[in-house]
Amino acid sequence: MQLQASKYTIVNNDFLPATEASLKITDLGLQRGYGIFDFFKIIDGEVKFLEDHLDRFYNSAAQMHLPVDKTSDELKAMLFELMKKNDLPESGIKITLTGGYSPDGYTIAKPNTIITQQALMLNKGDITPGIKLITYSHQRQLAHVKTLDYLMAIWLQPLIKENGADDVLYHSHGIVRECPRANFFIVTQNNEVITTATNILKGIVRKQLLNIKDSGFTITERDITIEDLHQCKEAFITSSTKNVLPVIAIDGKAIGKGVAGDVSIQLAAKLKVLLG
Amino acid sequence: MQLQASKYTIVNNDFLPATEASLKITDLGLQRGYGIFDFFKIIDGEVKFLEDHLDRFYNSAAQMHLPVDKTSDELKAMLFELMKKNDLPESGIKITLTGGYSPDGYTIAKPNTIITQQALMLNKGDITPGIKLITYSHQRQLAHVKTLDYLMAIWLQPLIKENGADDVLYHSHGIVRECPRANFFIVTQNNEVITTATNILKGIVRKQLLNIKDSGFTITERDITIEDLHQCKEAFITSSTKNVLPVIAIDGKAIGKGVAGDVSIQLAAKLKVLLG
Repeated sequence: MQLQASKYTIVNNDFLPATEASLKITDLGLQRGYGIFDFFKIIDGEVKFLEDHLDRFYNSAAQMHLPVDKTSDELKAMLFELMKKNDLPESGIKITLTGGYSPDGYTIAKPNTIITQQALMLNKGDITPGIKLITYSHQRQLAHVKTLDYLMAIWLQPLIKENGADDVLYHSHGIVRECPRANFFIVTQNNEVITTATNILKGIVRKQLLNIKDSGFTITERDITIEDLHQCKEAFITSSTKNVLPVIAIDGKAIGKGVAGDVSIQLAAKLKVLLG
Repeated sequence: MQLQASKYTIVNNDFLPATEASLKITDLGLQRGYGIFDFFKIIDGEVKFLEDHLDRFYNSAAQMHLPVDKTSDELKAMLFELMKKNDLPESGIKITLTGGYSPDGYTIAKPNTIITQQALMLNKGDITPGIKLITYSHQRQLAHVKTLDYLMAIWLQPLIKENGADDVLYHSHGIVRECPRANFFIVTQNNEVITTATNILKGIVRKQLLNIKDSGFTITERDITIEDLHQCKEAFITSSTKNVLPVIAIDGKAIGKGVAGDVSIQLAAKLKVLLG
């Protein structure tokens, strides 16, 4: 199925034809990879967890010394106008804030704001067969900020493919961190659900899962070791596009029975209710 | 003195007015900070160490899985045409290669090549009063590749200024690495000159210094520890724009007598001959 193209993109205060949206090459995002973004999805025309995403967007900007020249309400008004113009009820919106047009190519200038919308074949919370991961020793820099830095993630794509895997799981000195665009969870033999706690980007779906009161499970934030991966019964990742996505193998070894586990399936169902 | 503006910038095969050069926002350089570059200077209309820089450019591209659609000779022909059109005898040229216009914002596409030229007030090799550094624990990712990733370098600017310093010196687990845009050297009490050896970008001026046969000093590549910084007699950094630049203080403590040292001055003079 061909997805519908987005008609408009916002660059600063202008609604531009999406295919023409551009930035001058002096932008510090392009020159030095300096900028932040956030991404959220729209299901049946409704933005999911918008306040959480905007909170994180403003927090990322502040952490990176990037002033945002719009209030949250102004940004929302622009988002809603873009959604109306584009009319893509199943889609994702990405707000990017860059270091701006820097005269010396190094100093932060007035940030540029880009808002793009893209039609998506969205998983609305249904469970999928699961994915395979490889592990790789890497600690994301400024991990708690949603920066533009995906250098390692993209650089590792050939290695991921060579190993017949779908994504990479970063670890640092034996402590598991995250996937490039998703948080990581395990289920222990005692049905304890654990998600990594330190030096990670805290995702919005992760936060939603931690906040569910009646999940029937104890979800704990604490360090997961590489050793824990060999002992766990289930594993899954979470993200705005992936929801709860079972991990069925890591580094070529099956997790549990090598299929989506019961706890993962039940948590995916709980999340689906929230997304409803 | 107002520096003369560059008239033209190359984007792929087009010579564009420099103020208008732009890339579409889907470029993976902007979306994910994915790309490489090299930078070299022009003194009295002559490119310095061009072959070294082009070798490193092609090597960076290969390391990052980015195909270059021009041979070295084709690239040189474009460079020389740009230099002729811009007529900036004292300047710097930056060649950037990005991940290209990626349909999914994540997969490498056909790279975009950007070549900019900028008039510079160039130091032609004369010694300067010296700079102050602070140290910071950070290991550049894919350190041997000249990537667009300067996230930490720019993020650290306020901390550098708060400490009354000029730049930052990265170290990792007690081993000194490099400055964001320069290599690092010390001179020991025995007049041994040492430059850091591992997990760094190997600069072209660093290479030129290592290749000088008659410098009168032994220059050795090996690990420098944080402890070595407290013992050394002199320190300096090297880069294409900075040449040999003495370091007179690190973390608020004077190096040697807190002024440019004799060995630094002599090596700066040797480099100046090469630049002549």
